[in-house]
Amino acid sequence: MKWISGALLALMLGTSAHSDTIVATGDLGLVVERATGSLLLVDQSERSSIGQITGLGDLSHASLVYSPDQRFAYVFGRDGGLTKIDITEKKIVNRVVQSGNAIGGAISDDGKLVAVSNYEPGGVRIFDADTLEMVADLPTDSKTIGLVDAPGRRFVFTLWDEGETWIADMSSGEPQITKITDIGVNPYDALITGDGRLYITGLFGEDGLTAIDLWDPKPEPIRVLPNYGRGQKDLPVYKMPHLEGWARAGREFVLPAVGHHQILWVDGESLEETGRTDTYGQPVFAMSRPDGRQVWVNFAHPLNDTIQVVDTVSKEVVHEFKPGKAVLHMEFTPRGHEVWVSVRDAGKVMIYDTQTFEKLGEIDAESPSGIFFTSRAHKTGL
Amino acid sequence: MKWISGALLALMLGTSAHSDTIVATGDLGLVVERATGSLLLVDQSERSSIGQITGLGDLSHASLVYSPDQRFAYVFGRDGGLTKIDITEKKIVNRVVQSGNAIGGAISDDGKLVAVSNYEPGGVRIFDADTLEMVADLPTDSKTIGLVDAPGRRFVFTLWDEGETWIADMSSGEPQITKITDIGVNPYDALITGDGRLYITGLFGEDGLTAIDLWDPKPEPIRVLPNYGRGQKDLPVYKMPHLEGWARAGREFVLPAVGHHQILWVDGESLEETGRTDTYGQPVFAMSRPDGRQVWVNFAHPLNDTIQVVDTVSKEVVHEFKPGKAVLHMEFTPRGHEVWVSVRDAGKVMIYDTQTFEKLGEIDAESPSGIFFTSRAHKTGL
Repeated sequence: MKWISGALLALMLGTSAHSDTIVATGDLGLVVERATGSLLLVDQSERSSIGQITGLGDLSHASLVYSPDQRFAYVFGRDGGLTKIDITEKKIVNRVVQSGNAIGGAISDDGKLVAVSNYEPGGVRIFDADTLEMVADLPTDSKTIGLVDAPGRRFVFTLWDEGETWIADMSSGEPQITKITDIGVNPYDALITGDGRLYITGLFGEDGLTAIDLWDPKPEPIRVLPNYGRGQKDLPVYKMPHLEGWARAGREFVLPAVGHHQILWVDGESLEETGRTDTYGQPVFAMSRPDGRQVWVNFAHPLNDTIQVVDTVSKEVVHEFKPGKAVLHMEFTPRGHEVWVSVRDAGKVMIYDTQTFEKLGEIDAESPSGIFFTSRAHKTGL
Repeated sequence: MKWISGALLALMLGTSAHSDTIVATGDLGLVVERATGSLLLVDQSERSSIGQITGLGDLSHASLVYSPDQRFAYVFGRDGGLTKIDITEKKIVNRVVQSGNAIGGAISDDGKLVAVSNYEPGGVRIFDADTLEMVADLPTDSKTIGLVDAPGRRFVFTLWDEGETWIADMSSGEPQITKITDIGVNPYDALITGDGRLYITGLFGEDGLTAIDLWDPKPEPIRVLPNYGRGQKDLPVYKMPHLEGWARAGREFVLPAVGHHQILWVDGESLEETGRTDTYGQPVFAMSRPDGRQVWVNFAHPLNDTIQVVDTVSKEVVHEFKPGKAVLHMEFTPRGHEVWVSVRDAGKVMIYDTQTFEKLGEIDAESPSGIFFTSRAHKTGL
């Protein structure tokens, strides 16, 4: 057998030197440090932090998206700041304050456009991803929520006051707007499924949720779980769940119930309820491991020190543990072998093996909240 | 409104200089140039080639996988060569000739292990992804086919002679082998679904395919489409379809029929046939656009100059065109806005908009075959 020692050949090829100027970004991520308005740059493979970027403004409820080459991050601050970060040079390369009060953003499937959802003034603004020059302004006279990207250079968002969902098609360069009415009373958040087909809106002012099939040439509102939600029951809701937490597990979705100590199972085709699992507290995120076999759930204050892991075949809790006070977010490695957990009051990001549940490491962080791995660059709606 | 010009602020921040030493790899890819034993490094955003790496040996039927940081590619040559490429430095960093005749490989979900499937000698060998030192040798006395990675640091592969599928669990460091028998006569290729749950094997010696549910604690062979395939009918089969071409479109799979001018639709849960679509020729790849709304199909010689696009809702052909002689492979950008097509005899990789079907560009390449974008690093079974 023509066996050659790898190490020997490596020497023959003269490949000892490792260039420090090269930063491969495929296994990096950014952790939002909300108290200090900074971002911690982390390396998944090293399980360590490799830098901090400061001067991001108000990062309460902040989120971010990545450029297709996974070099740049676009950070959406609560103060209306849109900041472009170069994670290879660990610095801010551009920043605009594009509104008085913003909540979330998205990047087009071709990576050329970045959109921001605003409260003050209401509406969505769309920017050139290279220069951050505004290329489109879509005023709404309403707070806008649930802004996501959709295939075909489209953005989808929803109006809190009017209960309307707008589809902004940017494929021609100029926005072509399709408006869908009767979404429901006070939509508070929305998500798009990973395939970009279903846009699902949570309602604050009435029970249930509303789905839209973006493959339908004339999309109509579809009511989902009409007997669930906050609605008029005036349940004590400590924190509205994040709909990004909607997990796709095989053919089912998993939804954090609003105001109940439960997660709900919904058939991905019929959108009918298929089951309920009792949980430790009011769920905030119900995140599916990438293979869909497990759902990891965290909870609202005062029970936010605990995580439960639910098996998606048995729908039973198979593991429970307490990483510490204020578990705010969870992010899986792209192929799901690890999960990273923000534990705000411990000032740590904690890392766990998703097969053995063993703790693999932890990273110091200032009041960590959202964790965003660069692999999001290649997914729809994240 | 506190509007600040992006360009102005960029100057204020002093970010004009762009470091040429930085290579962000998230939007790169490698194209196999089989005739010359070389790889072309391409940039999706620029729609251009940015380098060539030579000295890869026999790249007929070659494939490759990426490290989690998307810096390194592991190339599996037909001659048994396992070559580690640094795409940021555009060079070979290590190469071992690990067998006399190999076909395909995989990388573990943690990125630490690379496995190669061998014909001569039969079996699978597993290597340290850093050093390419062999860490496990799994002889089989049979050609092995359909090697894939599965969640939980597992590899799955199948024995052509015995019709057995082996699951090698490397989570403990030492391989733990589970053998599943009665897969069928002469399995020739296999795939694993994107969620890592179903392993599906195509049969050369009899009709039908065989599925295994890897979530089942005691996996049993499940027969799929028992009346389809080459089987004993001895159809003129110009090229066996690639099962990697199995596309997931919503709740259905799409399968290139063997020896027939058809693609087949299979329910993802029941694995029952749900429809057939007549095609221009014998399909080789039936690739789903990432959103699952379209399936792109290429064909076996002598009809390999044509591509058909099938809508997954109507199951009808909605577009047909002729890029040129010998369309060998298609790769979608991660979010599906473009598709890149290898046209061997034209010596071009051609790039198309998947919404408008407009041709966006082309890149010169030496007899291009497989196209592999770095986003594969974050997917199971690719």
